[in-house]
Amino acid sequence: MERPRHQGMAKNTYMRWRLPLVCLLWEVAMIVLFGVFVRFGPEADAHWEEEKKELNLTSDMENDFYFRYPSFQDVHVMIFVGFGFLMTFLKRYGFGAVGFNFLLAAFGIQWALLMQGWFHSFKNGKILIGVENLINADFCVGSVCIAFGAILGKTSPIQLLVMTLFQVTLFSVNEYILLNLLHVKDAGGSMTIHTFGAYFGLTVTRILYRPNLEQSKDKQGSVYHSDLFAMIGTLYLWMYWPSFNSAISEHGDSQHRSAINTYCSLAACVLTTMAFSSMLQKKGKLDMVHIQNATLAGGVAVGTSAEMMLTPYGSLIVGSISGIVSTVGYVYFTPFLESRLHIQDTCGIHNLHAMPGLIGGIVGAITAAAATEDVYGKEGFIKAFDFTGEYQTRTPSVQGGFQAAGIVVSLLVAFVGGAIVGGILKLPIWGDAAAENCFEDEVYWEVPEDEESDAYHMHNPDKPASP
Amino acid sequence: MERPRHQGMAKNTYMRWRLPLVCLLWEVAMIVLFGVFVRFGPEADAHWEEEKKELNLTSDMENDFYFRYPSFQDVHVMIFVGFGFLMTFLKRYGFGAVGFNFLLAAFGIQWALLMQGWFHSFKNGKILIGVENLINADFCVGSVCIAFGAILGKTSPIQLLVMTLFQVTLFSVNEYILLNLLHVKDAGGSMTIHTFGAYFGLTVTRILYRPNLEQSKDKQGSVYHSDLFAMIGTLYLWMYWPSFNSAISEHGDSQHRSAINTYCSLAACVLTTMAFSSMLQKKGKLDMVHIQNATLAGGVAVGTSAEMMLTPYGSLIVGSISGIVSTVGYVYFTPFLESRLHIQDTCGIHNLHAMPGLIGGIVGAITAAAATEDVYGKEGFIKAFDFTGEYQTRTPSVQGGFQAAGIVVSLLVAFVGGAIVGGILKLPIWGDAAAENCFEDEVYWEVPEDEESDAYHMHNPDKPASP
Amino acid sequence: MERPRHQGMAKNTYMRWRLPLVCLLWEVAMIVLFGVFVRFGPEADAHWEEEKKELNLTSDMENDFYFRYPSFQDVHVMIFVGFGFLMTFLKRYGFGAVGFNFLLAAFGIQWALLMQGWFHSFKNGKILIGVENLINADFCVGSVCIAFGAILGKTSPIQLLVMTLFQVTLFSVNEYILLNLLHVKDAGGSMTIHTFGAYFGLTVTRILYRPNLEQSKDKQGSVYHSDLFAMIGTLYLWMYWPSFNSAISEHGDSQHRSAINTYCSLAACVLTTMAFSSMLQKKGKLDMVHIQNATLAGGVAVGTSAEMMLTPYGSLIVGSISGIVSTVGYVYFTPFLESRLHIQDTCGIHNLHAMPGLIGGIVGAITAAAATEDVYGKEGFIKAFDFTGEYQTRTPSVQGGFQAAGIVVSLLVAFVGGAIVGGILKLPIWGDAAAENCFEDEVYWEVPEDEESDAYHMHNPDKPASP
Repeated sequence: MERPRHQGMAKNTYMRWRLPLVCLLWEVAMIVLFGVFVRFGPEADAHWEEEKKELNLTSDMENDFYFRYPSFQDVHVMIFVGFGFLMTFLKRYGFGAVGFNFLLAAFGIQWALLMQGWFHSFKNGKILIGVENLINADFCVGSVCIAFGAILGKTSPIQLLVMTLFQVTLFSVNEYILLNLLHVKDAGGSMTIHTFGAYFGLTVTRILYRPNLEQSKDKQGSVYHSDLFAMIGTLYLWMYWPSFNSAISEHGDSQHRSAINTYCSLAACVLTTMAFSSMLQKKGKLDMVHIQNATLAGGVAVGTSAEMMLTPYGSLIVGSISGIVSTVGYVYFTPFLESRLHIQDTCGIHNLHAMPGLIGGIVGAITAAAATEDVYGKEGFIKAFDFTGEYQTRTPSVQGGFQAAGIVVSLLVAFVGGAIVGGILKLPIWGDAAAENCFEDEVYWEVPEDEESDAYHMHNPDKPASP
Repeated sequence: MERPRHQGMAKNTYMRWRLPLVCLLWEVAMIVLFGVFVRFGPEADAHWEEEKKELNLTSDMENDFYFRYPSFQDVHVMIFVGFGFLMTFLKRYGFGAVGFNFLLAAFGIQWALLMQGWFHSFKNGKILIGVENLINADFCVGSVCIAFGAILGKTSPIQLLVMTLFQVTLFSVNEYILLNLLHVKDAGGSMTIHTFGAYFGLTVTRILYRPNLEQSKDKQGSVYHSDLFAMIGTLYLWMYWPSFNSAISEHGDSQHRSAINTYCSLAACVLTTMAFSSMLQKKGKLDMVHIQNATLAGGVAVGTSAEMMLTPYGSLIVGSISGIVSTVGYVYFTPFLESRLHIQDTCGIHNLHAMPGLIGGIVGAITAAAATEDVYGKEGFIKAFDFTGEYQTRTPSVQGGFQAAGIVVSLLVAFVGGAIVGGILKLPIWGDAAAENCFEDEVYWEVPEDEESDAYHMHNPDKPASP
Repeated sequence: MERPRHQGMAKNTYMRWRLPLVCLLWEVAMIVLFGVFVRFGPEADAHWEEEKKELNLTSDMENDFYFRYPSFQDVHVMIFVGFGFLMTFLKRYGFGAVGFNFLLAAFGIQWALLMQGWFHSFKNGKILIGVENLINADFCVGSVCIAFGAILGKTSPIQLLVMTLFQVTLFSVNEYILLNLLHVKDAGGSMTIHTFGAYFGLTVTRILYRPNLEQSKDKQGSVYHSDLFAMIGTLYLWMYWPSFNSAISEHGDSQHRSAINTYCSLAACVLTTMAFSSMLQKKGKLDMVHIQNATLAGGVAVGTSAEMMLTPYGSLIVGSISGIVSTVGYVYFTPFLESRLHIQDTCGIHNLHAMPGLIGGIVGAITAAAATEDVYGKEGFIKAFDFTGEYQTRTPSVQGGFQAAGIVVSLLVAFVGGAIVGGILKLPIWGDAAAENCFEDEVYWEVPEDEESDAYHMHNPDKPASP
């Protein structure tokens, strides 16, 4: 049964050979590279039984699996259900939101295991992986999910796969510069994940600017139930964010502290978001866009500092501010970015990830600079900032400076990388839809006849109303 | 685009200045009080590195974080997704259900950290928090979510914030009396969370009785998809309830046992609920209201006794009975409460929390009174009931008596507190909606044009049917 | 308000006395049997406090609860939300999908605790249960959920309860033969759960063949939002599958390795599924049926081998192949099975569980046969395959042979058992619906007036359009 929708096929969105080709090519490459490079790390290898004895470990509990696996699963849910459903708010792009997020994340984690592995887990020609690598791969892909938010509804799945390939690569380079060369702390990724991911995505969407996008304006809104689906994404991101920020912190008090700080920051963020959502609307009504997004800014904004001695009240302050900044962003900045800077940001990642990411980087730099042995204890101080080896003599204020440098580097890599990748994605070979077909699942998906179309048929006198 | 809905604005529901004011005032107070009082507990503080050595801890695994964090996350999901989505069953109140639950819980956990902290974690002028405090704060807020179920759709967000402030306070006082003065066991909160929360909420809704509520009767039902959204809430509550009841039990066998007992009780509860749902309906069809709610009564009813040696078959019996009582309650008691006692209980919390909570308290008292050293082992017996220090000589039967006293105290605090708080909420300054606008998101939320309104427009000859 | 739906009550679907009778009978039996047989295992019993000292355990962390509880909760979510929501894709069978899955699983886990307990945890006349038993009970019920997928929408709840009783019994017998008699490894259940469950279900649906099922063809499809609900199920299955395959592996490296292998396999599976979904459709569009189901085949296909040294690239290969096989199955095999073999497989479990399950069994046999002391280490080798006691001298190639035998046994038990149980379910006493009422919730559920019926009323001139 054909639906008389505007199928103004000015552009060729036919995926039949292109999408399979890219998917299979990518996957074959992964298999070959994994075959050459990837092996189990010592704690996942059957030899661990022997190694345990050499290391005098008395309990299987000492396996890193038990320290990190619960957090890993929470992060995994955030990437696939959290980001996936958060983007289902559009009335006719639910399949694309959750399905393409699934596709790009599933590919991205494989490529991230390799890229991050070469930089961080490479020994004797092999990448040795364990649960921490899985978390880091999910983190890396998180930055792609963020960028996806800016271009949601306007790109083909092939473009997303191409972008994922490049963005994961750039993420890993940037992460290496920050963590290894600058020796910066960023366990929850305010800089590496959010600032980088968001400004990368914003640059890409700027390059891909569509002047006629108002042609699909009727599809840029939500419907009642799509807003509830999006709340599933929101709540899973919100609830599991303490796991996100603590997942790769040091064992013990660091993980514990990260979770508490993030919990506090997020709680405060909800209240200021609600306050400003109501205050900035003429009729004083709450806006689901703010509740779905700005309530999460508190998690982003303590991404760097959560594992530090930020303290619970410090977290409340950071969370409160970021909720305000994010909500104000949705009301004033997003329209401004679109009309003046030609940045079409579907999900408003500038408000949810870019600005709170910057706040997070800055708060991290300040918190690091303010650290003292008194507050951390002598050993805790060294452990918290890993002031060992060549960094033995680094002072907190110098560390704060390097943290700040990390923000700048992340921004640079995001802008330059985003511009180049945006240019590549602009090539007319990737099968993106025409402006009037944006935000519409029918372009790339088999869409079932549904309630809406039932309603349509009611005007059709030769069809019975009841399906 | 205006919708010609009944906006009989007899009441002023304008939130623009009132809601932001309350939210921001509350949050500023939290920041100040956290600043003065709240610090990291020893296991979340960077000094733990040193303390570990003093305590001769050989592994980071001994940090309480690893004993409780997975359960904490499950509880967190129950509070925000579980309760939030459970209440989305109403056809036009999904935003309010999930959004206001989000708001009150996010505020409540902050205030609970303080209130419970002063009672239980106060040392040298500071409240020292760790993962157990986060769980307890979530628990405390759980009782507010329960009370919210009674007044769902009939109150303004400001009323909810005011109620949360008072209810968290009363919860903490009641909890202190039970746990510290009466030395009662109640790890899963049959008394402190469910009995208290439900009777508090029922008293509040009695005070706020709306004689003309049938004016919004058309919105008190569900639609097909809202019932499915509600099932998300139901299932997450059901699946994670073993974590709820075991989250703050003693390490080791207690946590293990609590999870098993709860698992068994809930499984049995599903079968008796289905049986009675079919049996009590003339056509023998199952009713989603029962499946969404009464299946959970088994978790409530073992809240006190789950960590005791209730045994798996004991759990099956308790779960079976509570499923029956709860389902019967929905069919017979809820209409009776409304028509005779003027208690309008939107979600039927009397059936899901009040009666099963009482059952839970009684089962706990009996199980405690029946405890013997033979069943628990000499050391296990002391550990299970904490018969140390001044309680060294307490016998099981005396403990059973104190447990029963705990039920009575919880009821008293609920009734008296609920009456007072209900009186405060009755003041005409909080912006609640008129009776004909209850159960309607449009009062406090920006609601998108949706399928339904598309259908509406089809009668509008100057609009095309297809959106 | 009556809906003029086709209620061609050729069959008596009246459940009022039959369903309650079966539910209560089943539950009473459970209570009696639990009372006679089931007790807490040593790690959940209050005596553990003393036992800990005897065993020289220095930490509560050594309790198995902490090794397995997070995985248990993930598996629990897979059974109730994963399978439940995966099957909500049908436009008018969401209540039945999630509700009946809830019912059969809640009963099944109780019966499974007994059946598996008698075979595996029976000591001195008592079944001693702990967290591992809970996981195994969930696993066992997983095989029933799979079979439910084949007959979804075509059976009464009583038939499902009867089938559950028998299938759990057969599962336990088959599992005992495989694990104890053949000494086969199958931690993720490629053979015991998926191969057995799927071929059992396919045999049952073959016996229950309905020649006139096209009468309800209009209800066999999805609507837009039902496809999104189904994606919740898909994603939770996909994300938590690493926990499924590692939940009952040996502590330490085995659990760690299982999670990594499953993660890799699933990631690869998504890409090949997307590729073939697009490739096999004339217009090149993606099909939600494939995305919802075939993306999971990678988890099934490493169910046996995940805890072995399959290696990450081996997992990618297995995942890639299974995604292809599964998607091809949906496009070509399902129609063939229905038209030629009269196997009506509502959810396509042949593609998601049967074929990938066989692949999983074969991959497991090969991986076991290829094991060497070099790859596993001397001790790791013995631990991985439990080559101790009477199996001390078993070689990898012999183990491979026994693994293959496990597949054959599972198939035999499934076919014979399925035929017998199918025969029992064919008796005309269970209240199943007529062909034209299949896939319709109204037969067994109170269904609310909804959007659709609002649309219906629009043709009713004496009703206003807006509800």
